Amino acid sequence: MATQGQVITCKAAVAWEPNKPLVIEDVQVAPPQAGEVRIKILFTALCHTDAYTWSGKDPEGLFPCILGHEAAGIVESVGEGVTEVHPGDHVIPCYQAECRECKFCKSGKTNLCGKVRAATGVGVMMSDHKSRFSINGKPIYHFMGTSTFSQYTVVHDVSVAKIDPKAPLEKVCLLGCGVPTGLGAVWNTAKVESGSIVAVFGLGTVGLAVAEGAKAAGASRIIGIDIDSKKFERAKNFGVTEFLNPKDHEKPIQQVIVDLTDGGVDYSFECIGNVSVMRSALECCHKGWGTSVIVGVAASGQEICTRPFQLVTGRVWKGTAFGGFKSRSQVPWLVERYLKKEIKVDEYITHNLTLGEINEAFDLMHEGGCLRCVLAVHV
Amino acid sequence: MATQGQVITCKAAVAWEPNKPLVIEDVQVAPPQAGEVRIKILFTALCHTDAYTWSGKDPEGLFPCILGHEAAGIVESVGEGVTEVHPGDHVIPCYQAECRECKFCKSGKTNLCGKVRAATGVGVMMSDHKSRFSINGKPIYHFMGTSTFSQYTVVHDVSVAKIDPKAPLEKVCLLGCGVPTGLGAVWNTAKVESGSIVAVFGLGTVGLAVAEGAKAAGASRIIGIDIDSKKFERAKNFGVTEFLNPKDHEKPIQQVIVDLTDGGVDYSFECIGNVSVMRSALECCHKGWGTSVIVGVAASGQEICTRPFQLVTGRVWKGTAFGGFKSRSQVPWLVERYLKKEIKVDEYITHNLTLGEINEAFDLMHEGGCLRCVLAVHV
Ligand SMILES: NC(=O)c1ccc[n+]([C@@H]2O[C@H](COP(=O)([O-])OP(=O)(O)OC[C@H]3O[C@@H](n4cnc5c(N)ncnc54)[C@H](O)[C@@H]3O)[C@@H](O)[C@H]2O)c1
Ligand SMILES: NC(=O)c1ccc[n+]([C@@H]2O[C@H](COP(=O)([O-])OP(=O)(O)OC[C@H]3O[C@@H](n4cnc5c(N)ncnc54)[C@H](O)[C@@H]3O)[C@@H](O)[C@H]2O)c1
Ligand SMILES: [Zn+2]
Ligand SMILES: [Zn+2]
Ligand SMILES: [Zn+2]
Ligand SMILES: [Zn+2]
Repeated sequence: MATQGQVITCKAAVAWEPNKPLVIEDVQVAPPQAGEVRIKILFTALCHTDAYTWSGKDPEGLFPCILGHEAAGIVESVGEGVTEVHPGDHVIPCYQAECRECKFCKSGKTNLCGKVRAATGVGVMMSDHKSRFSINGKPIYHFMGTSTFSQYTVVHDVSVAKIDPKAPLEKVCLLGCGVPTGLGAVWNTAKVESGSIVAVFGLGTVGLAVAEGAKAAGASRIIGIDIDSKKFERAKNFGVTEFLNPKDHEKPIQQVIVDLTDGGVDYSFECIGNVSVMRSALECCHKGWGTSVIVGVAASGQEICTRPFQLVTGRVWKGTAFGGFKSRSQVPWLVERYLKKEIKVDEYITHNLTLGEINEAFDLMHEGGCLRCVLAVHV
Repeated sequence: MATQGQVITCKAAVAWEPNKPLVIEDVQVAPPQAGEVRIKILFTALCHTDAYTWSGKDPEGLFPCILGHEAAGIVESVGEGVTEVHPGDHVIPCYQAECRECKFCKSGKTNLCGKVRAATGVGVMMSDHKSRFSINGKPIYHFMGTSTFSQYTVVHDVSVAKIDPKAPLEKVCLLGCGVPTGLGAVWNTAKVESGSIVAVFGLGTVGLAVAEGAKAAGASRIIGIDIDSKKFERAKNFGVTEFLNPKDHEKPIQQVIVDLTDGGVDYSFECIGNVSVMRSALECCHKGWGTSVIVGVAASGQEICTRPFQLVTGRVWKGTAFGGFKSRSQVPWLVERYLKKEIKVDEYITHNLTLGEINEAFDLMHEGGCLRCVLAVHV
């Protein structure tokens, strides 16, 4: 390839400062070093973590940076020692790495990987603790080890899932974050059994994927809770069987749910990022066994609280990151399930724009009608 | 039996008012009605729930009442329809009932039973919502469905575990609460695996039973945490391998433990009832899989808090009541294990007194040296 070993200058959406519109810039992307992969990003979606860091509320957010973590592309070149992917491979960059050799990966108990976390957490690459992005020599930080709001990005090899080249990249880019998170929360973290009663708080992409996962797991009732009743009609297609808008009730929503379910639900999922809803989600669980999974990401510094009696009487409080899926091993499997039409993806895409329209795409996230907006990155 | 069908007048320690010394009174104990069992209590120990309700801090505490829930005795007579126990059977009254037919019992997921809860929670028997205890016609409330600080008590048949008559009642009375709670927290609730690193907060009877259970489960390290360093020497006999006194450290104890264990423990147990220690116990768990079990009972109204990120990054927060043991089914099994010398019981008994000395026994609970004090009830 002509670009291999060269610096590539390409378009990227740069977040120069918190809460200021992103700017499409010509960015220099250095070649991948040992253990790194340079990817031509073809399609990227937006997720709430991008908006959260962009807003400036994330105390760990670093600027200027290139956001983005839900994308798909093609390997452009690889650094020394990279054996599992090659130029031309279709891939999904994964913000949860999977090195297969750290304490976490070998535990068999978690999908969190410790290998590159120290570097990706501070916006750089592991080998030299530097960024591969720059503009006229000024470094631009990486984000979540992915930075997909760019025509080219560099990621660690442990963060690249190689997928079936038959998969349409403009769709399966969603398998980089929101959809797997919801499905995995049900299948891996909660392990919902057939016949279970499930409550889903928040009917955005993540909540709908929870509903879809719960339906696939054979849940008998899937109660969707949202403060925006417009979400309900669409949610039926994802398996939600009953709807509750907390604004329609005087009683706390957990009490409404306990009353409706003869004591509470078997499993609940918080897919919003609101700590008071997290409490409701725990407390609507059935005494003795109800399990609540926190999926939403709350703003920094906020805390969850409950009476310990809730746990002493048998409720379980858990959380999930990327739905417990091991990224390199299981994202390709999710792509296969999509290709076999066993899981939805297309249905979550409500808007299609281009990288140049990214600020409009951020605005769309606040509109009730928007689930995922996919940006074409090379146009 | 001469007493069958008759009111029995016997000695009982009555709590007339919160926080006032118990008074040994002549109490009338009515015969058991349908589904009830009258038990001659031979030995009873004291547990913190007795002291908590006695102190007046329990908003659900009812006075006057007869406290006590860790005891052993012999069936004196049974009411209509009682088939599983007979006069003369050796039994342990169980504050966790097991009816085998309610939603809880049939779930296979919990030891909590819903059958008599509504009655035992308000100090009465289920059939007529009345007490079987009275003094000159004035009713005295039951407590936890057991009321073992009496020479005779009446309990629901679903709350009686029939045990091997070879077992010494002055010892196995402890299998009515604290020791099973600790063992079961490890075996049933946490399901600690061989090789695990365990932290136990609080080295009283419950914490020591956790340590014993963890040792039996093959834990590789058992870290005991207590603010009273005098607890450490004795704890070695129960399997604790390392000791930490939070007062010896400037850093928060969870940080000390994370540093000592390359990232945190696999399992932690709070055996004190202190909500801020419950937080430490969660936060000393290893990212990705660490599980914390709340065993201690906090004062009413207090709340546990943490950042949701603790759960999103894989920690699990649980609790346990009676260690998850099904009382009628499993207390007899625990008695068998004791008879085979597979679990300790004698070692938790540090003091022996009589029912008449019960106020001294309450005082002893505040002394560091006391684990369990067993009272001989008929002397
Ligand atoms: N744990 C993970 O690995 C992970 C991964 C991806 C996303 N997330 C998080 O999941 C959450 C959901 O993401 P999304 O893309 O589905 O978001 P979204 O904004 O599309 O959906 C949130 C939904 O919650 C509803 N809502 C808001 N406040 C509510 C309240 N008080 N009660 C009931 N409903 C309420 C909104 O109307 C909306 O429908 C976000 O916090 C996101 O950061 C977590
Ligand atoms: N969940 C259940 O089913 C169940 C059953 C029985 C008992 N309990 C509860 O378990 C708890 C323990 O019971 P126990 O009989 O072992 O009590 P205990 O008083 O004998 O032991 C408590 C220990 O904790 C230590 N301690 C106190 N504050 C501390 C702190 N801040 N940090 C570290 N250590 C501290 C004390 O020095 C003591 O050694 C009580 O809250 C009791 O009510 C729960
Ligand atoms: Zn995301
Ligand atoms: Zn790893
Ligand atoms: Zn007790
Ligand atoms: Zn029952």
